[in-house]
Amino acid sequence: MRTYLDHNATTPLRAEARAAMIAAMDLVGNPSSVHAEGRAAKALVERARAQVAALVGCKVSQVIFTGSATEAAALAVAQKARHGGAFAALPTEHDCLAVWGERDLASVYDREGRMAPDWRAALPEGLVAVSAANSETGVMLPERQVAGSGAGHSVICDITQVAGKMPVVYEAETPSYAILSAHKLGGPKGVGALINFTASDPEPILRGGGQEMNRRSGTENIIGIAGFGAAAEAAARDVAAGAWDRVAQLRDLMEVALAGASKKTIFVGKEMPRLPNTSCVLTEGWKGETQVMQMDLAGFAISAGSACSSGKVKASNVLRAMGYDDTEAASAIRVSLGLETTEDDVLRFAEAWAAKLERHAQRAA
Amino acid sequence: MRTYLDHNATTPLRAEARAAMIAAMDLVGNPSSVHAEGRAAKALVERARAQVAALVGCKVSQVIFTGSATEAAALAVAQKARHGGAFAALPTEHDCLAVWGERDLASVYDREGRMAPDWRAALPEGLVAVSAANSETGVMLPERQVAGSGAGHSVICDITQVAGKMPVVYEAETPSYAILSAHKLGGPKGVGALINFTASDPEPILRGGGQEMNRRSGTENIIGIAGFGAAAEAAARDVAAGAWDRVAQLRDLMEVALAGASKKTIFVGKEMPRLPNTSCVLTEGWKGETQVMQMDLAGFAISAGSACSSGKVKASNVLRAMGYDDTEAASAIRVSLGLETTEDDVLRFAEAWAAKLERHAQRAA
Repeated sequence: MRTYLDHNATTPLRAEARAAMIAAMDLVGNPSSVHAEGRAAKALVERARAQVAALVGCKVSQVIFTGSATEAAALAVAQKARHGGAFAALPTEHDCLAVWGERDLASVYDREGRMAPDWRAALPEGLVAVSAANSETGVMLPERQVAGSGAGHSVICDITQVAGKMPVVYEAETPSYAILSAHKLGGPKGVGALINFTASDPEPILRGGGQEMNRRSGTENIIGIAGFGAAAEAAARDVAAGAWDRVAQLRDLMEVALAGASKKTIFVGKEMPRLPNTSCVLTEGWKGETQVMQMDLAGFAISAGSACSSGKVKASNVLRAMGYDDTEAASAIRVSLGLETTEDDVLRFAEAWAAKLERHAQRAA
Repeated sequence: MRTYLDHNATTPLRAEARAAMIAAMDLVGNPSSVHAEGRAAKALVERARAQVAALVGCKVSQVIFTGSATEAAALAVAQKARHGGAFAALPTEHDCLAVWGERDLASVYDREGRMAPDWRAALPEGLVAVSAANSETGVMLPERQVAGSGAGHSVICDITQVAGKMPVVYEAETPSYAILSAHKLGGPKGVGALINFTASDPEPILRGGGQEMNRRSGTENIIGIAGFGAAAEAAARDVAAGAWDRVAQLRDLMEVALAGASKKTIFVGKEMPRLPNTSCVLTEGWKGETQVMQMDLAGFAISAGSACSSGKVKASNVLRAMGYDDTEAASAIRVSLGLETTEDDVLRFAEAWAAKLERHAQRAA
């Protein structure tokens, strides 16, 4: 029996998404075709667009489907000429945004993940990336709001981890762009969206057939988009119903159990507004990478740092940017729960972890 | 009852692809994760990569999965600095390549789709796009081979329409890049591949997590890639078994039936090596757009020009580049058959088309 506790890396496919995708498999048409088969495929895409728009609180026309949040990030960053010409990402941002950053910004987070009160002033003018919640620690922006543009900067807000777990609430000023991904909220991998809050269409990076109203060419991923839409609708329903409150309780229960086994373990950002499902567990002297492998053997899937780096295992940039040294950062694991996680899952995990820790301590002694 | 005869726009999902996709829905892991769930997802991607490589005749490591052939085209064109700095596309190329062309090339095709004997000399030095078969007419390159690089130019060969219908046979010099799409060969929409035959990895246009060996970042479309792989394997099997010979016979039978109803109708490229499933039917004075709508009402899905242009209906660039005038080009329809097409399908189509033509002639008289 395996227990999956790595939901911030990717989530199991929701039943609603699965059903929508299987139904979409019967549609043969290309949405660009004018015949009945084409129109049916197009209608499916437009239905999904409305479902995603409802989840993230935007107009239907502001949703541009892409092949990933990574592609959405690249598309947003490509608009920098319209926003002063420069792009910068906080050092805690996901690689798909950080990779395009042209200057090193100081971290605005302390070791708890608390943002400096003047964090907005620390951002350079131009286009900047600010995530609504950090994927590794789960720490959210203050006020649990999505960062808006204004005060000399335009914001790309990464809502990938927030969407589907918390209501997406914008500041008085909405961001210029938001990015998200289906597979973090129970949809399939390989579909994402750019939410364009600006008044003009983005300059496309993929060109040709003129799909997505000339904003992103390439035949639409009908099956994946159907799954994204269905997952978004189901996720919005679960958020509204408070389904994540139970997950937060399980997460807290797990942290109590882990803390009971190890006095020196730190739960990064524990006192901060956090995603309900995420625990960043730092146990100095016990490599996160080792913990991941040991827990894998014990039947539990967790991660060390971001999962979005093919095969690479390195000390977390996020924790280093928050002021942890390399040894501390390398000792972190991320345990991220899902809606299907049970009390039994987290208690068994804590028990297995404690047993491995004891063996680790014995070997180290 | 509907009859789908628009397989060059997109194909029905093959049973093998459907089964592989449904099986992949049960895999929860992110291929970038090191735990068992992640490794299982990665293994699935690598299996599909081998299946696609077998279809197109390349090394497994040369396959880079993308979100579409359009993305593969953009990625290939982005390498132009390595190939002399300029990119040009023949005017008959698909929009996803033609859109990046920096200079207007003369057409090297005549009205039959025959290439000028010195067509290679007509290509400028640098990076150029040449399709192995035209999507609108089905006319293939001479010798039924995929165009290779050499003689001062590097080639991006669009094998989207050939792959899965004919053996992919390269010239002595292989191209620098080939592009293809899953949904043209019985796989899902939203997955494509760049085949990189050059010695160095392409400079990525999507960056971040480092997936696809740093050549294309973004979490992999596991379900779609599984479908692509299964479709590629099934398509290669059908090509080897000669399954398209029957389709070519049906296409020819249909053309005989259509010609019997209309002496003035031209079958573009009929005397040329053509894809086995494609018929470009030009009936001057009867708008292709109108024919598409009339046949749609009669229960048949066909197209006028390329389907990869969202909602746009315009006279075919391809036919104009071959020397047809606007009125002629606007009178073309494309009928493209699939492996599931039956004799009854094409005969009913021809009958319905002849009836509509008769009514059109009566109104015109």
